[in-house]
Amino acid sequence: MQLSEATWPEIRDCESDLAVLPTGSTEQHGPHAPLGTDAKTSAAVAEAGVETYRERTGADVPIAPTIPIGVAAEHRAFDGTLWVSPDTFRAYVRETVASLAHHGFDRVVIVNGHGGNTNALREVTGAISREDAAYAVAFTWFDSIDTEAEMGHAGPVETSLLYHIDDEAICEAELETAREGAGEGWGEWVAGVNLAHDSDEFTDNGVVGDPTTATADLGERLLARSGEGLADLLAAVDSRDR
Amino acid sequence: MQLSEATWPEIRDCESDLAVLPTGSTEQHGPHAPLGTDAKTSAAVAEAGVETYRERTGADVPIAPTIPIGVAAEHRAFDGTLWVSPDTFRAYVRETVASLAHHGFDRVVIVNGHGGNTNALREVTGAISREDAAYAVAFTWFDSIDTEAEMGHAGPVETSLLYHIDDEAICEAELETAREGAGEGWGEWVAGVNLAHDSDEFTDNGVVGDPTTATADLGERLLARSGEGLADLLAAVDSRDR
Amino acid sequence: MQLSEATWPEIRDCESDLAVLPTGSTEQHGPHAPLGTDAKTSAAVAEAGVETYRERTGADVPIAPTIPIGVAAEHRAFDGTLWVSPDTFRAYVRETVASLAHHGFDRVVIVNGHGGNTNALREVTGAISREDAAYAVAFTWFDSIDTEAEMGHAGPVETSLLYHIDDEAICEAELETAREGAGEGWGEWVAGVNLAHDSDEFTDNGVVGDPTTATADLGERLLARSGEGLADLLAAVDSRDR
Amino acid sequence: MQLSEATWPEIRDCESDLAVLPTGSTEQHGPHAPLGTDAKTSAAVAEAGVETYRERTGADVPIAPTIPIGVAAEHRAFDGTLWVSPDTFRAYVRETVASLAHHGFDRVVIVNGHGGNTNALREVTGAISREDAAYAVAFTWFDSIDTEAEMGHAGPVETSLLYHIDDEAICEAELETAREGAGEGWGEWVAGVNLAHDSDEFTDNGVVGDPTTATADLGERLLARSGEGLADLLAAVDSRDR
Amino acid sequence: MQLSEATWPEIRDCESDLAVLPTGSTEQHGPHAPLGTDAKTSAAVAEAGVETYRERTGADVPIAPTIPIGVAAEHRAFDGTLWVSPDTFRAYVRETVASLAHHGFDRVVIVNGHGGNTNALREVTGAISREDAAYAVAFTWFDSIDTEAEMGHAGPVETSLLYHIDDEAICEAELETAREGAGEGWGEWVAGVNLAHDSDEFTDNGVVGDPTTATADLGERLLARSGEGLADLLAAVDSRDR
Amino acid sequence: MQLSEATWPEIRDCESDLAVLPTGSTEQHGPHAPLGTDAKTSAAVAEAGVETYRERTGADVPIAPTIPIGVAAEHRAFDGTLWVSPDTFRAYVRETVASLAHHGFDRVVIVNGHGGNTNALREVTGAISREDAAYAVAFTWFDSIDTEAEMGHAGPVETSLLYHIDDEAICEAELETAREGAGEGWGEWVAGVNLAHDSDEFTDNGVVGDPTTATADLGERLLARSGEGLADLLAAVDSRDR
Repeated sequence: MQLSEATWPEIRDCESDLAVLPTGSTEQHGPHAPLGTDAKTSAAVAEAGVETYRERTGADVPIAPTIPIGVAAEHRAFDGTLWVSPDTFRAYVRETVASLAHHGFDRVVIVNGHGGNTNALREVTGAISREDAAYAVAFTWFDSIDTEAEMGHAGPVETSLLYHIDDEAICEAELETAREGAGEGWGEWVAGVNLAHDSDEFTDNGVVGDPTTATADLGERLLARSGEGLADLLAAVDSRDR
Repeated sequence: MQLSEATWPEIRDCESDLAVLPTGSTEQHGPHAPLGTDAKTSAAVAEAGVETYRERTGADVPIAPTIPIGVAAEHRAFDGTLWVSPDTFRAYVRETVASLAHHGFDRVVIVNGHGGNTNALREVTGAISREDAAYAVAFTWFDSIDTEAEMGHAGPVETSLLYHIDDEAICEAELETAREGAGEGWGEWVAGVNLAHDSDEFTDNGVVGDPTTATADLGERLLARSGEGLADLLAAVDSRDR
Repeated sequence: MQLSEATWPEIRDCESDLAVLPTGSTEQHGPHAPLGTDAKTSAAVAEAGVETYRERTGADVPIAPTIPIGVAAEHRAFDGTLWVSPDTFRAYVRETVASLAHHGFDRVVIVNGHGGNTNALREVTGAISREDAAYAVAFTWFDSIDTEAEMGHAGPVETSLLYHIDDEAICEAELETAREGAGEGWGEWVAGVNLAHDSDEFTDNGVVGDPTTATADLGERLLARSGEGLADLLAAVDSRDR
Repeated sequence: MQLSEATWPEIRDCESDLAVLPTGSTEQHGPHAPLGTDAKTSAAVAEAGVETYRERTGADVPIAPTIPIGVAAEHRAFDGTLWVSPDTFRAYVRETVASLAHHGFDRVVIVNGHGGNTNALREVTGAISREDAAYAVAFTWFDSIDTEAEMGHAGPVETSLLYHIDDEAICEAELETAREGAGEGWGEWVAGVNLAHDSDEFTDNGVVGDPTTATADLGERLLARSGEGLADLLAAVDSRDR
Repeated sequence: MQLSEATWPEIRDCESDLAVLPTGSTEQHGPHAPLGTDAKTSAAVAEAGVETYRERTGADVPIAPTIPIGVAAEHRAFDGTLWVSPDTFRAYVRETVASLAHHGFDRVVIVNGHGGNTNALREVTGAISREDAAYAVAFTWFDSIDTEAEMGHAGPVETSLLYHIDDEAICEAELETAREGAGEGWGEWVAGVNLAHDSDEFTDNGVVGDPTTATADLGERLLARSGEGLADLLAAVDSRDR
Repeated sequence: MQLSEATWPEIRDCESDLAVLPTGSTEQHGPHAPLGTDAKTSAAVAEAGVETYRERTGADVPIAPTIPIGVAAEHRAFDGTLWVSPDTFRAYVRETVASLAHHGFDRVVIVNGHGGNTNALREVTGAISREDAAYAVAFTWFDSIDTEAEMGHAGPVETSLLYHIDDEAICEAELETAREGAGEGWGEWVAGVNLAHDSDEFTDNGVVGDPTTATADLGERLLARSGEGLADLLAAVDSRDR
């Protein structure tokens, strides 16, 4: 259930103590994919996971609105990238979770679509779980799935998922350009340390990986697997001692 | 242009120094209207204003993603209401505007759909304009239009706009209930002071005003007038000395 | 009772759970009125209201010292204007109210003399009332009265009150100059939005309105009406459930 | 010159780059002296020092309004004591000094009347002088003078100064009581460390020292000496490299 | 060169713009290893790396004192564990790096001995490098080396390094106990998400891995490899564009 | 007992509710003494005091690791001086004390070796004792002892203690230089106010006092007296009502 589409009495009548909060980012995804990619993918995975969970258990879990802007200063060399500081992102997430908990939804799974949010989410879910009246964990969909495809950035994995959920969002005419200007790997590594704090240090056009290999079929499988992973997680969060 | 739907090179090629940032809220809107009302209305007004401005001038203005959760602790007695503190809301808006300005969009009009955000937005746009590398003002759509209808909360004005932009979001079956449990006015006033800090002190079901009088026709006129007001404002912001 | 003039045993013996906290500002008031105008007027109104309340009920209410510097960056183009950030102002007020509440004065009416403080006070009294061990509201005297005279800034209303409470503070020789350099209205408005964040954008000498029309008689009536409004408010705050 | 009593053009025409900012406290001063003692004394010393400096040099120095509430949690066991946290006090002082400096008064002497403010003022004047566009130091009047009388708290020194500047503020009938319930010294010391964080741990009525020995004559001498000290300091601050 | 052992003229004469800052933690390391393990290991690795770099290049790099307490709330169920919040840890590191940069050491490698610090260090080095007058990266020694041994917590890797650098710090009598009460893996995982925010959820005695397999020989090799990795990193940091 | 050298079960079995937390500074100590002087001396005094207390009472008190970097911006003109802001220092100390208290060590004596930390420690121990679940005081060793020698900075007192505890840390060859470039007194005083915020305003080489008069004998006596003072304080803290 999308919380935004429900009225307050409908939420009052919802018996769940689970809720899902998607977090995206508005940041460059190469010349072929839209700035809103991570918000789209986190929202789609949240919906898939909640639907799978509903099929398995009959229980409906409210999905809060997607937080659209995250921790993305690393991409600021590319136009249109929006970002807030990790402190502000954590505060926005933490207080949103607190308001969910105020209404009884005190087991919250954050469904995340952006790698740059991951560390901040691990930190803030720890703080929430230790100090606030709620338990929270963060699920970053592309870390939950095994796939032969390369994650990269705006690469085959993300582009495939976009093909499946919103193919009009992809500029097909730019895919070849995207491939040509892509970086070979994420970061510039020496002795296990990434020397690069920003993505323009290792990719000319913001892409890492080859998005021309993306397919809607792979996207469908990725969404299904992510949804199953999220449903597994919701079940575990529902049943554990807080 | 929706920034989220564009790629970074498309944004790079956009010559505007204007941008629009919608701010909503996820909060009770009575038994008949969805929790996401203020995000829907601010997004719709932003789009209408940018379209009117484009028709008048030929210039396209990017619309950032809607900030979905705002300053709404006053509605926390009603289920599903989400909120962050004014400090966190201001920080989230301010840093988002700073990232827009980083890319050259340093004249930002915030299009707001929630009364509870208004004071925080006046404060933060002053701080941005004085201290940061950008100029910003906030446009709260229902304060920009003259109308015979009552604003209230989830009353005829908001409900009419919803009828026009997303009529499926309204629970028509609950309209009569909404009218019956509505408060008569916003607040509990003595000597020019509102004694009530929270809305449940003066409305049983969260509504103020009579939403049964709402019509899609009125909604259409409200959107057109708001869009014109916003286009006027964009022109003024574009041409003024910062 | 002025808290500052009392000893601690006198305050211990005071049975009120009401207290009054005046907030002023130190900021330009044109060429004819002193920088301390808003501190003077808020203190005078506080005293008048507490005296009226004492006459009506027999109860004495302690008046805390006036906070002299507020949210006034908008006037910083004019010499001598002092200001703190809204965050610091809110913290100073909030902690002062907490210390009043520590001693049992946990129903606090802030008596405000400066328009620029209003939004910050609405926000902080909401936070106090929801989260702290006190209830607070803010009474801005010129918003509580109906008058034919124009508020403006350093205009007929404020100047009249000064004539009544401290006529030596007015430079009569500058009144004509004040009138001539005054702005016509507060702000620069387009589509319901004030484009101006600072007062020097719409007034050459800091004045809005015509202070030459001010009279001590009007000042006396304004003080009486404000005092009555404040006494009404104190009664309402005293009797309501917190 | 009292800044609050001046108009903005008068301040504009003032050629000083010196300014004085008094800081008081609103806190218990025993059964015989008012809660506002420290605000009264700091204001009186500021005025005396500025007058002495004017007599010596012909230059007038603006005196900002007294900050009335300071760092006084240590007295919170006694009714009517108001306080803010050291962080908030420092922010309030620092931003006030910044606004003085904005108008060219960038050599600021804080005239302090409360021991509990001293450490916070040393810290914040260091931060201002190192990081902001101003130089500041704090002058705590009773630390600047040699006297045979004991400082204590609400003891002979402060009570004598009150006798001279505002004798009606003293409850003479309570002086004997004040003497009887007074503590013998400030604090509870072991190995050079004061174990007591709060004053009620070592004084029953808030007094330290014997206020019955206070005289207006001593008060007059204390004010003169403090004024001379402050005038010396103003001269030194005026002439030093920042 | 240990900065703490040098005088200020010796540091003035040091021509490096590199510096090393070790960060440890004071936290449980099972029944057999001391609470200060992570401070000892980070200091030892820092020294080894600086020595290797000196042998290779002839250049001496100052080592700042080890920050002894880090982000370790996850171990708070075990006695003696000390921790600060991630915010405070980041501020302490960031300001320390800024003071190094003030003296010209504006390329700083943080040598970290504690997994719980890693995310906070990645975040703060990004902020330093983007916003401050310095470049910084963090080197977590056990992430820089390939080894057949299991990292775990207080397991074979850490225990081996302790055997090599400070064997008296190990309680050999407790090694068997340590092995018996150890957890099998770090965390409690579902769908790629660690449900456990605290270590007592998955280990009875704080250990993960089998410390009885630790040897001083392995410790020696680990230190050598870590020192080489750090020397490689110092060279890369020295030569890159900031 | 050094907490860092103990295992967690050893700390669990320690019955004390006392703990000691040393705070140093890493800052210039003239041409003859190391930057780490204040960390060395506070650690030595902590150890001496805890040993004396153990001899007197049989009770062992855990000593937390020394916080190595403190409030020392005043020395930043001299190379190698490290510092954090007072806010960050207070947060680091406060949270460390809170974690000690979490394990039952809720009577904490901070043993301080740096004058610049003193005000910040007085403030934070007050805040801890009033607001947190612990009692804390700060013992600055050179303020606890009577001695004929001059404290100064890197003068006879500190240098003597270094001679006793770590004579290799002293550059004897620089002692004469140290004496010659030393300032005559700490600060630049007018009317009881130190005009100097930084030490390079009154000392050319960072020294105040004559370190050539230092002796190991005096150092031994200073350490003994400080240890006795600290043991007295521990006894007083142990037995007082919190």
